[in-house]
Amino acid sequence: MRGAVGFGVFAQGDQAPRVGFRIGHGVLDLAAHGLGGVFDEPALNGFLALGRASWEDTLVRVAELVDGGAELVPLAAAMTDLPFTVADYVDFYSSLEHATNLGRLFRPDAEPLLPNWRHLPVGYHGRAGTVVVSGTPIVRPCGQRKAPADDAPTFGASRRLDIELELAFVVGVGSRLGEPVPASAFRDHVFGVTLVNDWSARDIQAWEYVPLGPFLGKSFATSIGAWITPLALLEDRFVPAPVQEPDPHEYLVAAGDWGLDIELEVELSGAVVSRTNSRGLYWTMPQQLAHATVNGASIATGDLFASGTISGADPGSEGSLIELTWNGERAVELADGGSRTFLEDGDEVVLRGRAGDIELAEVRGTILPARC
Amino acid sequence: MRGAVGFGVFAQGDQAPRVGFRIGHGVLDLAAHGLGGVFDEPALNGFLALGRASWEDTLVRVAELVDGGAELVPLAAAMTDLPFTVADYVDFYSSLEHATNLGRLFRPDAEPLLPNWRHLPVGYHGRAGTVVVSGTPIVRPCGQRKAPADDAPTFGASRRLDIELELAFVVGVGSRLGEPVPASAFRDHVFGVTLVNDWSARDIQAWEYVPLGPFLGKSFATSIGAWITPLALLEDRFVPAPVQEPDPHEYLVAAGDWGLDIELEVELSGAVVSRTNSRGLYWTMPQQLAHATVNGASIATGDLFASGTISGADPGSEGSLIELTWNGERAVELADGGSRTFLEDGDEVVLRGRAGDIELAEVRGTILPARC
Repeated sequence: MRGAVGFGVFAQGDQAPRVGFRIGHGVLDLAAHGLGGVFDEPALNGFLALGRASWEDTLVRVAELVDGGAELVPLAAAMTDLPFTVADYVDFYSSLEHATNLGRLFRPDAEPLLPNWRHLPVGYHGRAGTVVVSGTPIVRPCGQRKAPADDAPTFGASRRLDIELELAFVVGVGSRLGEPVPASAFRDHVFGVTLVNDWSARDIQAWEYVPLGPFLGKSFATSIGAWITPLALLEDRFVPAPVQEPDPHEYLVAAGDWGLDIELEVELSGAVVSRTNSRGLYWTMPQQLAHATVNGASIATGDLFASGTISGADPGSEGSLIELTWNGERAVELADGGSRTFLEDGDEVVLRGRAGDIELAEVRGTILPARC
Repeated sequence: MRGAVGFGVFAQGDQAPRVGFRIGHGVLDLAAHGLGGVFDEPALNGFLALGRASWEDTLVRVAELVDGGAELVPLAAAMTDLPFTVADYVDFYSSLEHATNLGRLFRPDAEPLLPNWRHLPVGYHGRAGTVVVSGTPIVRPCGQRKAPADDAPTFGASRRLDIELELAFVVGVGSRLGEPVPASAFRDHVFGVTLVNDWSARDIQAWEYVPLGPFLGKSFATSIGAWITPLALLEDRFVPAPVQEPDPHEYLVAAGDWGLDIELEVELSGAVVSRTNSRGLYWTMPQQLAHATVNGASIATGDLFASGTISGADPGSEGSLIELTWNGERAVELADGGSRTFLEDGDEVVLRGRAGDIELAEVRGTILPARC
């Protein structure tokens, strides 16, 4: 297999949306090849709920069909939709470099990394209902903003609209309330991954976020890929994660290698402005899942758990503009000779991920003008 | 009508769960009285999505049936379930007294009310998937805890398990992404209200909440009533809300009276430990909705927007134990001669609300021992 691969929802012409498997520039129509039931539905949720054995059986059948020369629907002829109904959306803060950078920018007079950060994967809930599929235009949000130099808030369109390059996992099999999901059970519950652009209005966020965390600075839209890549297709991409100091508590210990070696890039209006890799994330996906449920919180089919912004240590490897431009102090260069600190109307952002032979589905979005 | 009234989901014996209307100690079986379709479903969502005209037509039909002597199912013979599938759950922080108290307790060395608080209704997203119906037992959560006197976190069962007395509104009619819902459109979108107990593990919360807000300290469970009271039955309970200073921005101006006069009480293992009223909330429901969508975030059928803890100015009117006991310094007395600072295993908490002739459905929960 080559190019982007994953399960998603597609439709041709006026056909009802249904589940397909994307391979590069084509889509395998599963229902048309005798796989009915959950594949006739307009969302992956039914398939996700079936569990690991069914996911892997389906991949075997997909490989047989492709190897047998099954006809693919040209991707260009397919409309895509949100691949699954999002249950809860959680966003972590798992990159040491990102947390350190944001600490320096948001709290310049204090220690950048807060005391809890190395003890647990800090995270919060985002708005599930505004998760949108790649290609959905993003309307610049309005709200109460306060730039660092302002004394008081003003109302209007965000002037500091940003991106966040993230990787997320998608829950297939849920759990029962009151029963934590151990890190060792990660693969029994989690189906696959997608890139995420957690669009962020920094001026709205800076004013609102104390003490209860980000709200309107993030909730206007979060973009995910149209095709979810199963973990089973990424087996050879698991590598050792960074060493953790201090040792995490027992419930956060995950045997095996859980770093995920995916090369990532951010393209802004034609110019690649950041290159990084998700293997550098300090907190791993099984740790995130174990932490999010250690209090007995249940998970459900369609839950989306994102990594938080993925930033590396080197210049040009940061996953947000506020870091790449150091709070707007140094612009990034675009392909047309222009430059950006934060996003302008009409800008198009594309997130890409490559894992050896295969790619994750891109996450694309264009900024539309504010409506205030 | 007398006693608790509202729409919910019930079942008798091995019948399939369906929509009913509770009146005091009885339930009107809507499907059995010729109202089919959305009333045959095991959640209110279909009915909620129909909109205000249908909600009001249904109430007229309910009144006709009740006045005509329709037989009611005894409440004691009915099993109840979560009344609707929760889409997104947002929790505000709308009580001036609560925000001031928590500021004093969590940040003793700083101004208790943060600079943004009087400019916007501060809020955050909670975990929709762990919203449970009244009566569901609450397992004491485990996690990383840090008491104020501790130098480092420890792992174990929460020792500072608390309640939060809240009032929430339930969205019926959704909106489109990118289009704010003005305060004036509140009644076209919002179906009704329920009491909420936003269970909180203060020791987990205190350690984790900076900088992204509450996460595991809240996400283990949030209890709501089994019956949602339509706003149309509370018309005579809308009263002037507190005067706001400074004047809120134009998008937060809601013509009319939006304080909601509901007498509230918290019973802890048989003793009423708090009495307050939701009319004292600084930020009103239309302001909360207008704020949550001013950035273009869409709302959906089944969204739950809670007020945040409702505390009054007088001793004994606080909506949480951390306030009632001032961080555990002064215990509250129980009916059996015992006392409490935070919740103990086996404790039962009941939230009640009375709006003149009618009541909101109670929210009840009993603490089960931790499983760590």
